Amino acid sequence: MAFQPFQNSMLALGQAPSVIRETFEYGNRRAQEIGRENVFDFSLGNPSVPAPESVHDSIRRLMDETDSVMLHGYTSAIGAEPVRAAIAADINRRFDAGISAQDLYMTCGAAASLTVTLHAVLCPGDECMTFAPFFPEYRVFVESAGAKLVTVPADTEQFQMNLAAFEKLITPNTKAVIINTPNNPTGVVFTEENLNAFCEILRNKEAEYGHVIYLIADEPYRELVYDDTTIVPYLTNLYDDTFVCYSFSKSLSLPGERIGYIVVSPKMQQNTLVYAAVCGSGRALGFVCAPSMAQRVVADNLGKTGDLSIYRKNRDLLYNALTEYGYRCIYPDGAFYLWVQALEEDANAFCMKARDYELLLVPSDSFGCKGYIRIAYCVTTEMIEKSLPAFKKLAEYYGK
Amino acid sequence: MAFQPFQNSMLALGQAPSVIRETFEYGNRRAQEIGRENVFDFSLGNPSVPAPESVHDSIRRLMDETDSVMLHGYTSAIGAEPVRAAIAADINRRFDAGISAQDLYMTCGAAASLTVTLHAVLCPGDECMTFAPFFPEYRVFVESAGAKLVTVPADTEQFQMNLAAFEKLITPNTKAVIINTPNNPTGVVFTEENLNAFCEILRNKEAEYGHVIYLIADEPYRELVYDDTTIVPYLTNLYDDTFVCYSFSKSLSLPGERIGYIVVSPKMQQNTLVYAAVCGSGRALGFVCAPSMAQRVVADNLGKTGDLSIYRKNRDLLYNALTEYGYRCIYPDGAFYLWVQALEEDANAFCMKARDYELLLVPSDSFGCKGYIRIAYCVTTEMIEKSLPAFKKLAEYYGK
Repeated sequence: MAFQPFQNSMLALGQAPSVIRETFEYGNRRAQEIGRENVFDFSLGNPSVPAPESVHDSIRRLMDETDSVMLHGYTSAIGAEPVRAAIAADINRRFDAGISAQDLYMTCGAAASLTVTLHAVLCPGDECMTFAPFFPEYRVFVESAGAKLVTVPADTEQFQMNLAAFEKLITPNTKAVIINTPNNPTGVVFTEENLNAFCEILRNKEAEYGHVIYLIADEPYRELVYDDTTIVPYLTNLYDDTFVCYSFSKSLSLPGERIGYIVVSPKMQQNTLVYAAVCGSGRALGFVCAPSMAQRVVADNLGKTGDLSIYRKNRDLLYNALTEYGYRCIYPDGAFYLWVQALEEDANAFCMKARDYELLLVPSDSFGCKGYIRIAYCVTTEMIEKSLPAFKKLAEYYGK
Repeated sequence: MAFQPFQNSMLALGQAPSVIRETFEYGNRRAQEIGRENVFDFSLGNPSVPAPESVHDSIRRLMDETDSVMLHGYTSAIGAEPVRAAIAADINRRFDAGISAQDLYMTCGAAASLTVTLHAVLCPGDECMTFAPFFPEYRVFVESAGAKLVTVPADTEQFQMNLAAFEKLITPNTKAVIINTPNNPTGVVFTEENLNAFCEILRNKEAEYGHVIYLIADEPYRELVYDDTTIVPYLTNLYDDTFVCYSFSKSLSLPGERIGYIVVSPKMQQNTLVYAAVCGSGRALGFVCAPSMAQRVVADNLGKTGDLSIYRKNRDLLYNALTEYGYRCIYPDGAFYLWVQALEEDANAFCMKARDYELLLVPSDSFGCKGYIRIAYCVTTEMIEKSLPAFKKLAEYYGK
């Protein structure tokens, strides 16, 4: 075999144009041309509300009261024990989930939660499933762990999990299924009915195949829910062989600080061995420990969030206006995304047309579902208000 | 093939007893039995001097002056541009290395610098070399990247790189060589002569094999050097195809905060493509970005360190006393480790005997070199003073 100077798969990933990132960068160039205030950039899922002030209070207090060597030193690879104990208690208080500190593994954020979990359980030949539309990095993470991503076509009516299609695609090679509720990119929260039916299929298939099938719940948006009646069930309560992959990025508006955790359900088959594999995976990937001060900060701010009412206001404003202009919008209960049917078949072409009106939208193809756009409404309410006439004109262009 | 419920290699890593960690945990149990002050734990390389006060000043100032959404938001995956520019300028000021911001990739610490680099360049069938004694995680990181670690036997006289053995072991499959100076576990700084001869071999072998051989310089201890005349050459100045993997863990006493960087030498063959592969690798492993506030903090504290004079004092105290008691100590120019020949052939047995005197030492076997012990002197000077009679009695037990 010819000498390869580097890993070609990594080169491909490093060079792959992310449509989200590309749109964002177009926006920056356009802002220089016509002024930031005239560009309506809805491309990035970067929280736009500040961290709660209590986060900075915690940092100040920790610096004043904690020995520097302790505060900034290595924690145990699995995370500081008091931090894990506090998080477990908070989860149990909210969801009665029966989690202990030793079921938790602190991570450098949601992506790390996923890669550490996937590298712990996936083996060559395994299939890992997910439901379209889905966060495009799932493919990167699953393939880097040496397995195959199998995607279930979208339920284009409700954007719940398409369980009929799922049942047809699951095979004895299915090792794990990643689900994401509240969902990126749709903003939809899966109903209890949908989740229960899904877990029932998993249990039946475990029995049929005679082996474990892991449910990996990717939950960075858990706290971003805007209707008081919306319930986001805690997955370890519905299905035993569950990992919960969490991040404080969105709830505390700390995406750059890289802090989250994995719950290995205490009810999982061979959970002690699986937890050890998680530890081995974190070690192999080079994580060492989650950022030490951030561990203490999040433990100090459990139950707190940034001012999420801004997102709700943005959602209502955008959903109501776009629906009125003739767009088909999927009603989002959570996250900070609005999922809208493109006004022509090709979502990429539609997004290019939208740029004529300075609207920067993300086409749905990279989410595994054609014909839609994602609008990230984690922006200022003012920008949304200013953008509405552009959305109206765009609809009019398409004869709405 | 039988169904595997998890990745057995990860399980093995998660369950593998690290002798360092095991010694540390024995120390904790022993401290509960006889009091912390009576246990002389030299097992862990955790900085014992506090971060410079300027680190907390920077954090306070950043919180006061920077918009929260900006401060705690995602940076570019490669790191914030002003941070990379500041670090590049600092490197150039100190080493005249001709580095630019675009040659730098910010990471979550030294382990991440290594795993991201190794996953970027190593392919199945590749060999990655290192010199014994070496940091045991090198094996974990190289094997997780799908390659084979080839270790060069130690030069047990000077503990410089054993170049005669290296020349015999290098093959056309050698893709990279990891070196670590100042060295963990020996504390030795490789001489300019040794480094130049090493780079000359690399250049000759590149020509002979007709392909690149990467030098990966693992440099977390660069600033921990105790003799003013000791020079730690900057490797990109000696060899073109060099990565510098750096961490601020030891210099700023921030090991838990997980902040470091990779330099991809601008003189490296195909450096633009290699840099892209580094980006792809960081993405695939789930790093997203280095912790955002910590990026700004280290950029604000370039050239600063904790009070390293404590380590120098500890080194002198320990080296002089142990030499006087009849131990053969390798003189350490840097890092915070003292490398001592065990007083019996089996270093493990020697370390068990040392426990009779409440001395917790790390045997050298896991560093790829039998018959020595590592003493991590990043502890209080007071503990070293109290431990000296125990070292003396241990020597006397062995007839010294």
